[in-house]
Amino acid sequence: MAHPASPLARPFPAMPVIGGVTLRVARAGYKDWGRCDLTYVELAEGTAVAGVFTRNVCCSSEVELGRANVAQGRARALVVNAGNSNAFTGYRGREAVEAIMAQVAAHLDCGQEQVFVSSTGVIGVPLPKDKAEAGVRAALASAPCSWEDAANTIGTTDTFAKGATAQAVVGGKTVTLNAIIKGSGMIAPDMATMLGYIFTDCAIAPAFLQDLLSAANQRTFSCITVDSDTSTSDTVLAFATGAAGNDPLSGFDSAGADAFAAALEDICRQLAHLVVRDGEGAQKFIAVSVTGAVSDDSARKVGLAIANSPLVKTAIAGEDANWGRVVMAVGKAGEPADRDKLSIGFGGTWCAREGLPLADYDEAPVAAHLKGQEISIEVDLGLGQGRATVWTCDLTHGYISINADYRS
Amino acid sequence: MAHPASPLARPFPAMPVIGGVTLRVARAGYKDWGRCDLTYVELAEGTAVAGVFTRNVCCSSEVELGRANVAQGRARALVVNAGNSNAFTGYRGREAVEAIMAQVAAHLDCGQEQVFVSSTGVIGVPLPKDKAEAGVRAALASAPCSWEDAANTIGTTDTFAKGATAQAVVGGKTVTLNAIIKGSGMIAPDMATMLGYIFTDCAIAPAFLQDLLSAANQRTFSCITVDSDTSTSDTVLAFATGAAGNDPLSGFDSAGADAFAAALEDICRQLAHLVVRDGEGAQKFIAVSVTGAVSDDSARKVGLAIANSPLVKTAIAGEDANWGRVVMAVGKAGEPADRDKLSIGFGGTWCAREGLPLADYDEAPVAAHLKGQEISIEVDLGLGQGRATVWTCDLTHGYISINADYRS
Repeated sequence: MAHPASPLARPFPAMPVIGGVTLRVARAGYKDWGRCDLTYVELAEGTAVAGVFTRNVCCSSEVELGRANVAQGRARALVVNAGNSNAFTGYRGREAVEAIMAQVAAHLDCGQEQVFVSSTGVIGVPLPKDKAEAGVRAALASAPCSWEDAANTIGTTDTFAKGATAQAVVGGKTVTLNAIIKGSGMIAPDMATMLGYIFTDCAIAPAFLQDLLSAANQRTFSCITVDSDTSTSDTVLAFATGAAGNDPLSGFDSAGADAFAAALEDICRQLAHLVVRDGEGAQKFIAVSVTGAVSDDSARKVGLAIANSPLVKTAIAGEDANWGRVVMAVGKAGEPADRDKLSIGFGGTWCAREGLPLADYDEAPVAAHLKGQEISIEVDLGLGQGRATVWTCDLTHGYISINADYRS
Repeated sequence: MAHPASPLARPFPAMPVIGGVTLRVARAGYKDWGRCDLTYVELAEGTAVAGVFTRNVCCSSEVELGRANVAQGRARALVVNAGNSNAFTGYRGREAVEAIMAQVAAHLDCGQEQVFVSSTGVIGVPLPKDKAEAGVRAALASAPCSWEDAANTIGTTDTFAKGATAQAVVGGKTVTLNAIIKGSGMIAPDMATMLGYIFTDCAIAPAFLQDLLSAANQRTFSCITVDSDTSTSDTVLAFATGAAGNDPLSGFDSAGADAFAAALEDICRQLAHLVVRDGEGAQKFIAVSVTGAVSDDSARKVGLAIANSPLVKTAIAGEDANWGRVVMAVGKAGEPADRDKLSIGFGGTWCAREGLPLADYDEAPVAAHLKGQEISIEVDLGLGQGRATVWTCDLTHGYISINADYRS
């Protein structure tokens, strides 16, 4: 990890065992660094898989193949390469991914489509096939490792290892979810793609797992932003081994489905927050809550316009209760809004209500709130019942230093 | 002017006289500063007016009234207040604008709808009516001033006075266009709204002047960005006094209409470039040229996605030929693009062609280009004939310093 840990870092949690999941790491040497950079996860036969992927149209071969292979619903292994994103590398990049899939499938005697590969790092350099082949061979021969080791190994410019865990009771059985994630910009290609992996022992049909993951994604990963730049490689995969022995979940009529869905969304939100907490240069964690929108989706878009505004983010960095910049961001969002119904607050204190600065506005509690690490911005549009919360970090000199110096 | 002049600053040009235009400035004292902050421009009777305004739905009363009054096509005066944007101030803000319009209309014995008012500065503080009234009175009693004085007086956080001039021959008469502009972010509400004013002695019908201004705006002001934040007060107005004595232009069938349209677009482009050159923290001027898009509008959107990407802008600040970040920005633009047809270059040297890094790519000329102040990025999408050029500046520590410290 190149930079000192983020001031917003969280300690790595204690992670229970998940039946049917074995983690291993190795050194493929994708970069000239003295650390493991290849992660191999073996999954029990019959493991269900679901995934969500970047919408960037210049996506990597890993994303293309992963999106295609999720459709058949089963997984036996995951390989994550750190230090090279293999994006924008044409047919040579694709061949490197297919070679890894073939190597692992031969080892496990399974179909190639059950082997998932992710890569993160520099764009435009084909993943070296020889290093990948030797790295996978070393991983297969190594002893199992801890969740924290795996979380460190998938990282690139991350400043701390990021993991989360949750449990739910499903049909009388306790099921566990463990997850690791890497990412330090919502995206920052060639340095900080967001890759997240969720593992559970819950028995669940792949199609239902996909439904739940897609729904949770809308309210968690799709509600964070560090710098508005969308990766070519963003990937979140969920693997369910079934080792908990519950009656398999196939829909919301199944006993315990609601509890599992809640636990899945909880762990997705934990992961999403950890990425923001490691946002490049972040000094403050910001929650933007939008209410009174015409729809939840409209609220999310207004929230993202605020969370992506360089002027709002620098104001928070400067501990400045500059609510005029929030007004500007609401107005440019392209969503229904009425200046004369708009209310803005910080940390629970309204600065402006219904289009006018509050006559008795007392800036003291707002100034005190902005000196903290956990900032909230409240916006009420006064139009309808739509609501959403979006999370981001402030924009500081650290972001410039990290991104103006990288590569070359 | 609070900060040292931008390294990209341009000297103020020599400006010819425009018949029918008289400039005056005064101290209204909107802020506690020892400088003029109110600009008054008197226009000959019958002056045609056209305007383009911010699309921010939280726009100021000045914008609302200006948009309504442009429709009748005639102007006698312009008042520009610096230091207070009067945005998000409800009915009290609107009353302040209407009071200025009434005061000037009484002085000139004209309709209020022929008096245009702009304001720029902090959001959320109603413009003080007493200061405005005294400021206008002082301006009316003062001697005429120079174009450079007026350009300095409309500025706020601008680091240099920005003016441009152009001429065209219309029906055998030489017509002159002079213009001044302020702005240091595409927008930065409460500190740096973009306000631009073009004055010409050309005789032209208001409706045709509006057509030409709207068309020029699409290829000039709508093609620049400093920080992706859209002002609540952006305004560009064009005033045509008719003092040149040419046969009035009423459409492209009029003699000299093409020459005037070209001169108008030229002056708009000059003004737009000057705003980018005073972009907050700017060290480099960046032109992003997109070709091969499915349409000109699609090319412009791809160009803006690149020009708004914090990762592209920090890479240029770091003089880093990081074309992978350009790939990412193309892919996230939401416009038709095909990874395997995409080509990227800097300063006329291709780094990648048709989806693959160039095998014989020589970074030396690119590295040399990036050390300069004038940077070009070339993107060919390989899909169609659409093209556009977008202009921006790099993202530096200066932007953070300026915006994390402002106000409070």
